[in-house]
Amino acid sequence: MNTGSSRIAVLLNELTQTWHQTIPVSQFMQVTPLSFDNQCFTVTAPLSPNINLHQTMFAGSIYTLMTLTGWGMLWLQQRLAGVEGNIVLADANIRYLAPVTEAPIVTVIWPESLTDKSTSSGTELPDMSVFEAINNGKKAKVKLEVQLHCAGKLCATFSGLYFSY
Amino acid sequence: MNTGSSRIAVLLNELTQTWHQTIPVSQFMQVTPLSFDNQCFTVTAPLSPNINLHQTMFAGSIYTLMTLTGWGMLWLQQRLAGVEGNIVLADANIRYLAPVTEAPIVTVIWPESLTDKSTSSGTELPDMSVFEAINNGKKAKVKLEVQLHCAGKLCATFSGLYFSY
Repeated sequence: MNTGSSRIAVLLNELTQTWHQTIPVSQFMQVTPLSFDNQCFTVTAPLSPNINLHQTMFAGSIYTLMTLTGWGMLWLQQRLAGVEGNIVLADANIRYLAPVTEAPIVTVIWPESLTDKSTSSGTELPDMSVFEAINNGKKAKVKLEVQLHCAGKLCATFSGLYFSY
Repeated sequence: MNTGSSRIAVLLNELTQTWHQTIPVSQFMQVTPLSFDNQCFTVTAPLSPNINLHQTMFAGSIYTLMTLTGWGMLWLQQRLAGVEGNIVLADANIRYLAPVTEAPIVTVIWPESLTDKSTSSGTELPDMSVFEAINNGKKAKVKLEVQLHCAGKLCATFSGLYFSY
């Protein structure tokens, strides 16, 4: 499914407003969507509000930026599929590989095949997409892998397990 | 070793200044040390600047608060031991167990026995403390477990691997 560029612009603007108006930290950090093409979503933030005492990007800001990128991808996919669902992060792992010395580009790819489970019973629902699960009132799980690049170099990797319900 | 309450107050004030003056996000979040008694360090932050769209504490703020608590513990231990070392976070894992509905209390306990390794060679240094390693110009590793409680309930657990060099 392709989505027109004007619809994408509207969606990214709505996502930015949602972040900045409901999560004050994201506004302070100036977290900003860059692009979305159904499969790939990219986000950035300037270095200045996110600096640490080494004059590179603060570990907490890096994590928040990557968390919101994954959250935003699920939010965008729900919008495209026309489904509603509150999105929360259940757990996450992050590895810091190199200092972030300028505004980074954070990327998440929507996985080709999702593993969806009904978390209430713990039984697998192999034939049900994550959105069908949501529409059926079940909690859906999505594990997203997020990468952060700076100056052409991979500087951090993040893996987050998101629930939508 | 016991440390006088006036020295602790000075150290906690210095730590607060270090955070707020060098990490703008920590100042925005109003991250604030509560207590330190050589083995246990507690930190808090108010809900208001750290809210999310569910009116509970934002996952990114929870992570940042727990990251800084671990970082602060290592900073305090270095100060007590009279050693210098830049502290960075290498990787971390966080689990969100329950929503944070009011200002939480974040706690880290300094482990009784630390596993210290010379990361340059990868060989173990079982007889060298983390601070001796730092004084000998070696990178020291400390894994810290941090807990976040809110309204008497455990709401998040964090495990972070810190390097001091």
